[in-house]
Amino acid sequence: MPVISSKGKAMPESPIRKLAPFAEKAVKEGKHIFRLNIGQPDIKTPIEAMDAVRNHKLDVLAYSHSAGFKSFRKKLTGYYAKHDITISSDDILITTGGSEALIFTMGSITDPGDEIIVPEPFYANYYSFSTQSTVTVVPVISTIDNGFALPPVKEFEKLITPKTKAILICNPGNPTGYLYSREEIRQLAKLAIKHDLFLISDEVYREFVYGNSEHYSILQERALEDHAIVVDSVSKRYSMCGARIGCMVSKNKSVMETAMKFAQARLSPPTFAQIASEAALEAPESYYIETVAKYKIRRDTLVEGLRQIPGIKVAMPNGAFYCIAELPIKDADHFAKWLLDEFHVNNETLMLAPASGFYSSPNVGLNQVRIAYVLNRRDLKKSINILKLALEKYTDQKTIVVAEENITL
Amino acid sequence: MPVISSKGKAMPESPIRKLAPFAEKAVKEGKHIFRLNIGQPDIKTPIEAMDAVRNHKLDVLAYSHSAGFKSFRKKLTGYYAKHDITISSDDILITTGGSEALIFTMGSITDPGDEIIVPEPFYANYYSFSTQSTVTVVPVISTIDNGFALPPVKEFEKLITPKTKAILICNPGNPTGYLYSREEIRQLAKLAIKHDLFLISDEVYREFVYGNSEHYSILQERALEDHAIVVDSVSKRYSMCGARIGCMVSKNKSVMETAMKFAQARLSPPTFAQIASEAALEAPESYYIETVAKYKIRRDTLVEGLRQIPGIKVAMPNGAFYCIAELPIKDADHFAKWLLDEFHVNNETLMLAPASGFYSSPNVGLNQVRIAYVLNRRDLKKSINILKLALEKYTDQKTIVVAEENITL
Repeated sequence: MPVISSKGKAMPESPIRKLAPFAEKAVKEGKHIFRLNIGQPDIKTPIEAMDAVRNHKLDVLAYSHSAGFKSFRKKLTGYYAKHDITISSDDILITTGGSEALIFTMGSITDPGDEIIVPEPFYANYYSFSTQSTVTVVPVISTIDNGFALPPVKEFEKLITPKTKAILICNPGNPTGYLYSREEIRQLAKLAIKHDLFLISDEVYREFVYGNSEHYSILQERALEDHAIVVDSVSKRYSMCGARIGCMVSKNKSVMETAMKFAQARLSPPTFAQIASEAALEAPESYYIETVAKYKIRRDTLVEGLRQIPGIKVAMPNGAFYCIAELPIKDADHFAKWLLDEFHVNNETLMLAPASGFYSSPNVGLNQVRIAYVLNRRDLKKSINILKLALEKYTDQKTIVVAEENITL
Repeated sequence: MPVISSKGKAMPESPIRKLAPFAEKAVKEGKHIFRLNIGQPDIKTPIEAMDAVRNHKLDVLAYSHSAGFKSFRKKLTGYYAKHDITISSDDILITTGGSEALIFTMGSITDPGDEIIVPEPFYANYYSFSTQSTVTVVPVISTIDNGFALPPVKEFEKLITPKTKAILICNPGNPTGYLYSREEIRQLAKLAIKHDLFLISDEVYREFVYGNSEHYSILQERALEDHAIVVDSVSKRYSMCGARIGCMVSKNKSVMETAMKFAQARLSPPTFAQIASEAALEAPESYYIETVAKYKIRRDTLVEGLRQIPGIKVAMPNGAFYCIAELPIKDADHFAKWLLDEFHVNNETLMLAPASGFYSSPNVGLNQVRIAYVLNRRDLKKSINILKLALEKYTDQKTIVVAEENITL
């Protein structure tokens, strides 16, 4: 039998989706699952987007421009302008999700064996896309104890080699919820310029910022024009994960011309999804305000609830809609499976994302989970209660197992 | 300034799309362009597909399963059964266009430096996707003189090295229009098994077969189960190029499990497009019959017309909706630009795809173009007339230029 590639073998299973078979079994058994494992919001997609697709007048579903609809890219410049980001439509390439923006970025700036430095924990698929491009992820560990703030720049500097091509951040962070300050971004910008590296910023959660915090984009750093590449997406902003529309934004012409060749190869981004995404820009300001207000309440509910469970450590996230929680257990992978496979409270249980998949360093974060607060407050409260009861039972069980093992031994 | 990758530099510009700026200029100058350069059919998309999207009842545009809608994959097994292909829904992975199916396939079976043997001329983007995966395309030249039939198997065998992972064919062929016979497929199957290679077949034009010919899929070869990977797409079948829905089909479990990891990384294929593609399966049999009948007339019109232009050589295509024509010129790239830039007949001109982009061997096919017969008969006749007049004028001009150069020298 012909063999699969080393690359294919090295591709990680999604830590977010690898529990799917256990979830399917739980559903078959009649359990209801609160899905805190995946950033799939329950928020309604703007009606403007949904109606635009409902009212389409197409007879032929044709290819679009490889860079995406010109009209859409033009309107996007207005969207960015509202965020103090000044770009032209030529600085934007519409992609099939933020995923493709990352794949094009990696393809445009890295060759096999090159390295990208990434603060850890990081969005698990950065590792997948790096593997796909045969690029090495070099992690800089950030810790729950200071809320996953940017590690000192000297920690990055230590890791720079002739193979280093870029630093990749997610701002605000998935899975940490950490929002980088203007000062932190400037430190990274200086570092990127000093060592002539690209600075890639995944800003798909730009709007999801709580309290008095403000998002500061790498595209606002004038001196960084040749180095900055932003990865963006409509998925979270408009609760349109299924659209699969994102974009890559850079003022570096060589980068954009190169990315365009990757874009031409795959012909075009999906047409219906572009229609929806362009129309979503017409959603009123109140859409964002209400959405963010909802998430703020959810965040507060979640963190407050988690902090009342003995043994849980959690940092207050200032952005996105995730947090990392450290649980009083040893193996979150096992716990997450057990929740689906063996546990329920009145036929209800939880799905969590074990945080191990968000670290590339071995044996880090094994007792952590990522929780996506994408459910309404009532369901979140129920989920917190289930987690509390589960931890009590799981810890008991573990104690028993250990005791039995001791006896056997 | 940080530099782009060698891979990025090596990525070819799309030969189909690189003329776009010249076309845009021509349109601005008020010229009408008959676009024979790209496989964008004018055929209407099935109303079933368009209505399914118009009538969608979604409130939240959510991620789908990474492998695509289960319901869609199940229905697809029925579609394949009609083509004597027996597979289960687990053998199908829904992708974002045939493009992504190829990218997943290459990722699953090749590592940087590996080789794939491809009969040449081939679909230009095979070269792009190989470059993206840092894989080497090893061409086997097929010639216009026997209509681009499969080169003798011994020609393939000569090129097999320890780095060879697969043979990739397009059946029926883009850009050649050649339909491989059952006997040719069997020869390739034997070769793949003998050398333990994957045989990848791009069958996106499966229905577009003319006369008494029949399509024979590699999936119909029982002995090839572990070696066969089919790349498929709804783009041409239902005139839904803008959907960006395709699939990868294989009975090799390791391949499918590996491809699934690539699929999970990019989360899911586009939701609206899946709704449309699933509904397209409900299109009546008459949709295919009428479409293929139209293309047959177009093919006959085109080939007949081309054969009446002095100096043109063309092979009768038995499938897909392309043909390669050899023109009485030296440089089809220059000619194609000139058509857009300097030539018109009553403000009408042509867009052709220079065939050089479909060859990886240097200096082959320089006088050839690919013509997509995706226009109605009347427009095709006009196009043929424009080509005839253009060749007369271009040849004259070239003679003058050469004469002037001689004088200068």
